[in-house]
Amino acid sequence: MLAAPINPSDLNRIEGVYPVRPPLPAAVAGYEGVGQVHALGPAVDSDYLSPGDWVIPSPPSFGTWQTYVVKPAAAWHRVRSDVPPQYAATVTVNPLTALRMLGDFVNLSPGDTLVQNGATSIVGQCIIQLAKLHGLHTINIIRDRPGWEEAKDKLKQLGADEVFTQSQLDSIKNVKSLLGALPEPALGLNCVGGNAASVIMKFLRQSGTMVTYGGMSKKPVTISTSSFIFKDLSLRGFWLQKWMNSDKAEESRTMIDYLLSLVHEGKLKYEMELTPFSDFRLALDKALGKHGSRPKQVLSF
Amino acid sequence: MLAAPINPSDLNRIEGVYPVRPPLPAAVAGYEGVGQVHALGPAVDSDYLSPGDWVIPSPPSFGTWQTYVVKPAAAWHRVRSDVPPQYAATVTVNPLTALRMLGDFVNLSPGDTLVQNGATSIVGQCIIQLAKLHGLHTINIIRDRPGWEEAKDKLKQLGADEVFTQSQLDSIKNVKSLLGALPEPALGLNCVGGNAASVIMKFLRQSGTMVTYGGMSKKPVTISTSSFIFKDLSLRGFWLQKWMNSDKAEESRTMIDYLLSLVHEGKLKYEMELTPFSDFRLALDKALGKHGSRPKQVLSF
Repeated sequence: MLAAPINPSDLNRIEGVYPVRPPLPAAVAGYEGVGQVHALGPAVDSDYLSPGDWVIPSPPSFGTWQTYVVKPAAAWHRVRSDVPPQYAATVTVNPLTALRMLGDFVNLSPGDTLVQNGATSIVGQCIIQLAKLHGLHTINIIRDRPGWEEAKDKLKQLGADEVFTQSQLDSIKNVKSLLGALPEPALGLNCVGGNAASVIMKFLRQSGTMVTYGGMSKKPVTISTSSFIFKDLSLRGFWLQKWMNSDKAEESRTMIDYLLSLVHEGKLKYEMELTPFSDFRLALDKALGKHGSRPKQVLSF
Repeated sequence: MLAAPINPSDLNRIEGVYPVRPPLPAAVAGYEGVGQVHALGPAVDSDYLSPGDWVIPSPPSFGTWQTYVVKPAAAWHRVRSDVPPQYAATVTVNPLTALRMLGDFVNLSPGDTLVQNGATSIVGQCIIQLAKLHGLHTINIIRDRPGWEEAKDKLKQLGADEVFTQSQLDSIKNVKSLLGALPEPALGLNCVGGNAASVIMKFLRQSGTMVTYGGMSKKPVTISTSSFIFKDLSLRGFWLQKWMNSDKAEESRTMIDYLLSLVHEGKLKYEMELTPFSDFRLALDKALGKHGSRPKQVLSF
């Protein structure tokens, strides 16, 4: 492989907390990445793949954390090679999750608003930019931590309409007073749980939907009876791997091409910590928290 | 009116905890009931209503706790008078809620299972009987209290497949082992909240839906991140009054006729505490908890 990311979900798989586990003892970790075609088997149509092509495993599959991978040709999707490799390596999980969640739950029209927590995550950054491209407004909630003002500025530069820290919202009785001229959000995206999910629900409009796709605080979602009965909120979940399982290989490849075209045009970008493959072990130790706190994502290439 | 119930929701309205409040100071409480036509205005078509007819306010509206009510003819729905008046008086809120919830959220087929808590409530009793009529199985959860074995027997007689007390379920690690030959439930109905909602979610199958229509424990619903992401549960809410607001008057009258035909055929029954109208004040005090614990429902006639 040319490059492969260390995603938080990779670590969860290694820790065994994901419900899908690769067969042991021969498992190789790593769920996405970009490779370059080294050689073709004799039966592979040379129109489909050629040596030198950039390819990603699509649907994603275990084993990208290795130098050489042999798979049937159909398991690879050729992608454009005029984008930075770190984007081709990471387009399948986080940007695709962002794109699906914008389309799969609520019928949003230009001018509508959505609210999300964990907005500095890669999914969060993609949500902001994809929403902006579709004429949608975003209310973004970030953690209270040193440097939050810098993080806020970065998200604003990506197109965020509003950015608040959790404690700014905790201190306000009626968070909707912060909406200004923006319509009340119809969609909320939650990757944190706990209070950070509760504040999403406070922002949502009557009959709004909150989609949970992560639980970084490790706290559950708590919702009052009246939010169900009188406010008519719907709570759903999203997991890319389940969506992929339902025979969406072609559709996902079309979306990956779309996302990489946005990257090429400079309309989609996100921050990663880059590490040479030779330092992969160090990067993995760091990702596992052996050297301080866990970063969001590390990419080795 | 011939008869009008004291529903828990009437008490909530009087207490002011419902989001919809009747205009004061001239408000009369009572949201459903059956009356007998006393006299018609000169413009009323005598094919539509005649003196002596039994009528219910449809859609339901405030003011059934009074002896005489004057409303436009179109506000009344003539119902059959060959059923006990307590059923005509109570068909609009609880049985209709049960019927809607069976149809509005999950596409259930004969042989499917649903799970509910608060199964001894009138909605719960209606769910059991309506489910049975549609070939659906029910798992029913009731409170731990003196007489629970008798309550279990009564629900079984109504058609319940399984009846468990909350503590029986709390003591079991894998509640699904209790399903026996029944399929995992696709639909859960929650009117309690707290642990009683959590156990509903444990029973639900992958991608199942829990609908909250009450919160008798006054505790919120708490759900883990993994239940959203990996189990793909959906959480929804139901409130009859909101459904009614969306221009469903004709449909609700058809359903009311259907429900009263089931009552007439002996296929739908539920227990109420009956009190003469002359003792209405006593019944109301009792319902408000001034003489011991609150009963589920009291009907005065």
